[in-house]
Amino acid sequence: MSNQNKIQIETCFSPALYSTYEDKNSIVVIIDILRATSAICTAFHYGVDKIIPVASVDEALEYKKQGYLAGAERDAFKLEGFDFGNSPYDYMGENIKNKTIVLTTTNGTQAIYAAKDSYKVVIGSFLNLDVLCEWLSKQNRNILLLCSGWKNKFNLEDSLFAGAVTTKLLQYNQKYELGDGCLAMNYLYQMAEKDPMKFLNRASHKERLVKMNLKKDIRYCLMPNTSPVIPVLEGKYLVKMMF
Amino acid sequence: MSNQNKIQIETCFSPALYSTYEDKNSIVVIIDILRATSAICTAFHYGVDKIIPVASVDEALEYKKQGYLAGAERDAFKLEGFDFGNSPYDYMGENIKNKTIVLTTTNGTQAIYAAKDSYKVVIGSFLNLDVLCEWLSKQNRNILLLCSGWKNKFNLEDSLFAGAVTTKLLQYNQKYELGDGCLAMNYLYQMAEKDPMKFLNRASHKERLVKMNLKKDIRYCLMPNTSPVIPVLEGKYLVKMMF
Repeated sequence: MSNQNKIQIETCFSPALYSTYEDKNSIVVIIDILRATSAICTAFHYGVDKIIPVASVDEALEYKKQGYLAGAERDAFKLEGFDFGNSPYDYMGENIKNKTIVLTTTNGTQAIYAAKDSYKVVIGSFLNLDVLCEWLSKQNRNILLLCSGWKNKFNLEDSLFAGAVTTKLLQYNQKYELGDGCLAMNYLYQMAEKDPMKFLNRASHKERLVKMNLKKDIRYCLMPNTSPVIPVLEGKYLVKMMF
Repeated sequence: MSNQNKIQIETCFSPALYSTYEDKNSIVVIIDILRATSAICTAFHYGVDKIIPVASVDEALEYKKQGYLAGAERDAFKLEGFDFGNSPYDYMGENIKNKTIVLTTTNGTQAIYAAKDSYKVVIGSFLNLDVLCEWLSKQNRNILLLCSGWKNKFNLEDSLFAGAVTTKLLQYNQKYELGDGCLAMNYLYQMAEKDPMKFLNRASHKERLVKMNLKKDIRYCLMPNTSPVIPVLEGKYLVKMMF
């Protein structure tokens, strides 16, 4: 096999397909651009110590009762009784500094949960694009880009980010072996790179957020490299990767 | 809701996600470009009367024992003891004329099975692209483009065809509401349209078939409009749609 020593990059477009793509030796990059993984990167950039991602609202409530600060979002809305939703702007305050907080979201925390047994789980967003790709390029290991999507459906913004990572990684090393999902998104990103906001114009979740007056959030989530940190899963905690 | 009366087009990239996209009132277009749906279109163009698509090899064998001509493919190989594989070239002979034949394939017949309870199931391939899109454009009904993929993974050639259908339908009517999968593939098809063979150059399944010396098959499966028929599911049979 001529491809034996190549490093493979693949994109999975839905957490529901994760088992089809699963490879316990892969690094899995969790992607939920609007807005969970953007919010997580922001929180670490602004000094949060640890995040406990949980799949259900009940679990988040349990932690909340124990005194933790907790964020909860479903269907793009912040849930009542919680401290934060999943807007990056919720995670910029002094109140999160050096704290451990809890987070549950419609799609992103589900994807983290699905991938938790892989070799390593890291968090990706445009906010940490370059630092993430530089780190990935130095690991001699297959990479799975796991798009959180929208309720297990393909979504445009997560896929576009998978294309951004693929494109950047190819700049480091032309010898990656790309799965079909990466091939497609590599092409797509080339069309979108100059103006992602325009490219996403008709994307379903963007429309959802625009209706909620969250255009400012969308713009923020598409800004590259404003939070140059790599959140990584260690046991039940997301922490900031130390270099 | 301003979009209430719009006709929706959505793409599902894996039969494993079908339940997520399912809408019993939709027309489902089954797509397995390399090669099941291309072979099915070819067979009807060359005069087959009915095709019984079955999910398992055992079912196909049962029919074979009853005297049916039967095609069976797994992992791109024709299975021993069967009359055909899934190459379109297997379905051009006089021996299939006016016959009912049985077919099982790795991906395509699984997708047909998954969608069998929807409003209508039709078969799509580049070979019937224009006649299919013209017919779809006249139905006042949501459309789901169901890519068979490769063992439940996203594949490039099926997705590209979903982009071709989306692009053609938008030429008939700009007012379709596109799901994110269609938006992405609409962009992708614009990049690929001029030279799909080159575009698919690095696609995983194309590589698989090229290794098996099946380049001629691939070329044939990418030729638009050579089999201008629409196979449609009626009960357990695929038949040629009459206009």
